[in-house]
Amino acid sequence: MEAEIIAVGTELLLGDILNTNAQFLSRELASLGINVHFQSVVGDNPERLESVVNLARSRSDLLIFSGGLGPTQDDLTKQTVAHAFGDELRFDEEELEKIRGFFTAWGRTMPENNRRQAYVPVHGRKIENHNGTAPGMIFEDTRAPGKYAVLLPGPPYELQPMFLDTVRPWLASMTHSALHSETLRVMGVGESHLEEKIGHLLENENPTAALYAKTAEVVIRVTARAKTEDEAKAMCEEYAKKFYDILGDKIYARGDAPIEHTVVRVLKEAGATVAFAESCTGGLVAERLTNVPGASAVFGYGACTYANEIKEKMLGVRRETLEAHGAVSSETAAEMARGVRRVSGATFGVGVTGIAGPDGGTPEKPVGTVYVSLATATDTYVQKLVLTGRTRATVRQSSAQHALDLVRRAALGLPQPAARRFDPDGPAHWNDDNTALRDV
Amino acid sequence: MEAEIIAVGTELLLGDILNTNAQFLSRELASLGINVHFQSVVGDNPERLESVVNLARSRSDLLIFSGGLGPTQDDLTKQTVAHAFGDELRFDEEELEKIRGFFTAWGRTMPENNRRQAYVPVHGRKIENHNGTAPGMIFEDTRAPGKYAVLLPGPPYELQPMFLDTVRPWLASMTHSALHSETLRVMGVGESHLEEKIGHLLENENPTAALYAKTAEVVIRVTARAKTEDEAKAMCEEYAKKFYDILGDKIYARGDAPIEHTVVRVLKEAGATVAFAESCTGGLVAERLTNVPGASAVFGYGACTYANEIKEKMLGVRRETLEAHGAVSSETAAEMARGVRRVSGATFGVGVTGIAGPDGGTPEKPVGTVYVSLATATDTYVQKLVLTGRTRATVRQSSAQHALDLVRRAALGLPQPAARRFDPDGPAHWNDDNTALRDV
Repeated sequence: MEAEIIAVGTELLLGDILNTNAQFLSRELASLGINVHFQSVVGDNPERLESVVNLARSRSDLLIFSGGLGPTQDDLTKQTVAHAFGDELRFDEEELEKIRGFFTAWGRTMPENNRRQAYVPVHGRKIENHNGTAPGMIFEDTRAPGKYAVLLPGPPYELQPMFLDTVRPWLASMTHSALHSETLRVMGVGESHLEEKIGHLLENENPTAALYAKTAEVVIRVTARAKTEDEAKAMCEEYAKKFYDILGDKIYARGDAPIEHTVVRVLKEAGATVAFAESCTGGLVAERLTNVPGASAVFGYGACTYANEIKEKMLGVRRETLEAHGAVSSETAAEMARGVRRVSGATFGVGVTGIAGPDGGTPEKPVGTVYVSLATATDTYVQKLVLTGRTRATVRQSSAQHALDLVRRAALGLPQPAARRFDPDGPAHWNDDNTALRDV
Repeated sequence: MEAEIIAVGTELLLGDILNTNAQFLSRELASLGINVHFQSVVGDNPERLESVVNLARSRSDLLIFSGGLGPTQDDLTKQTVAHAFGDELRFDEEELEKIRGFFTAWGRTMPENNRRQAYVPVHGRKIENHNGTAPGMIFEDTRAPGKYAVLLPGPPYELQPMFLDTVRPWLASMTHSALHSETLRVMGVGESHLEEKIGHLLENENPTAALYAKTAEVVIRVTARAKTEDEAKAMCEEYAKKFYDILGDKIYARGDAPIEHTVVRVLKEAGATVAFAESCTGGLVAERLTNVPGASAVFGYGACTYANEIKEKMLGVRRETLEAHGAVSSETAAEMARGVRRVSGATFGVGVTGIAGPDGGTPEKPVGTVYVSLATATDTYVQKLVLTGRTRATVRQSSAQHALDLVRRAALGLPQPAARRFDPDGPAHWNDDNTALRDV
């Protein structure tokens, strides 16, 4: 089945709103194994809408419309589609009562305009809207059975439940093949390095696998097509194993949740807590962690220590360290991590210091130079990040991402990527030399 | 000039990414007075891409493409458009050197694939990309002069500067009527209340004015159409005054920059500094402020004090206060603000405590109950926010927004919206009673 998605709305063409419906519907159709070949947006203009509908009808079997069903938009979308699909509209008393009911519940009188929303297809079917006044509808082409148009209201909180409750099950019953996708999230291996390691797994036909580079992480999506959802799922499962065999604990999670969700979970499982001392990230690491509901079980204190005096006063970073090595140095990062661990009593302390830019870089320490450090009861690790050529926001996000991964690895008892280990008994002394620092 | 926007990318058709470029480009074209009649998305498929290009060429004068210029995508988009517009591609040594330069700066070797990005139009022109390897390009139809295709790279941080620096000025010089927009950003007045106050100003024909509700703020966009940019600008200026007359200092800034940019600027101008003590926002206030380049001039310390012990230890919040009133109370918020001001030595201290959800609410203090407080040398203000029915992320963003506005008002010496004033000589005593608390 070949599908296309058509949004009707001048506000999209003016850029006033973002077309999130297209993303939602595309993802849903992909998960049903339905190929989406086109997305379009057209305004509330009869000729242009008609041309888009006719073209779509000529090249696709399934047309999914969003928007254009509001009370102020005439019946343009409904009428144009009904006409193209050889159907007509009838007035539906039952629907009118529902619409009136919404207004009564809101304590308002129904405006006359909303009567228009009670027109539904004669041959096609209406779809109930539990979250708004405009019913959805499905037209089947009377001259070309097996060709469908689905009309959904524009507001996402109306469109999404309507799609999930009614349209998705109906499409699932029609498509005989099912698709399942698994997303693997990978930290600590660059995209090109990753391609070398797993490139051969990206050539497969079914399941397919694809890489997507995100900020300081890469996402692998494995998608299998089979007769049933269960079968497709099992195929994904098996194929995902191949990635685990190569990448092991570099895969930090499955699914859509960012790394902070994994960090909260593994800290809880380990019965451990974490504290942050942030300079260039300015609270971003704490902000991300506390974005996870329930973070309070594993997190008590984060210090955004921007000023040097504050690093000394609140974390006990030594003035000599700051003077000898600078605020952006592995030594300062390590003392920040140890300091915040000590004052907070957390299991792990994390320090982040660097130059986020756009100003403040030097030839020795250009913008994008960042040190992230993790302190445990016995050890301190520092990882140097070289994030040159990035924006301030990206430097900060990448740094936060790497800091969170140090915590994940510590909570799981995995070896740390940074080779530099800090000797807790002699804070200015390093167990091994600078060359062992790993640039990321 | 009739335009359409075409995004090339299978990842959009799969719903993996959101088409933010379409919104950006639509808004920009609208501000130039160029009508966008269609937006489309097509995948990396030669036949379908060709059909989209030919259709667009037949119905529009200006085609703006985003994406399809990456090193792994062959030269499909370039070649298809060049062919449709009667142009050809040539290999550009200079461009190759630039691309190589990017890889050198990243400390990597250029993969062979990237050579493809050095092909540019023979008759058309290339557009320099300062943020990535793929140059943009402009084709003029050799068989129908005055018809253009503009190709831009997909990543927004490459596309946006390229559009603003090169494409926008070029389009502005071609369109003879100019549009100018001014954005006014408003804090501390709800959308419906705002509509009552300024509704009559939203009915105008030229300039037009429209309201957009954002998280804890409202944006007013004034747009004027005139013969010249200067004339349109002057019309906007004059119309904007009408909003200032009514809203005064509730308008915190013009333009697109969020409130933290205003806060950094007004603090600098006042020679003042700020420190944050955050509970439910977990670092978000500090993170937002430090997102502004140069924030270090006005910010030294932010404490994310999630745990009660940490509130006591790091900020000196009294145990009795926590026990008598709870961590989410105006009293605790006030002591957090005073405490962080004291330990940091900042001019202003800010405290934020609340229930972000989804759990942790009670009948007395439901999810969305937040107290934001600001301490100066002499006074402490507390504002209670009632943000019920919102998501965790929205509660946090709204709280941060209100906290930042307290700082803005303090730095400007404006009266605070919160009626509750805290007596610094008797921390458990309030100057006025609970009923004076203003709910927002």
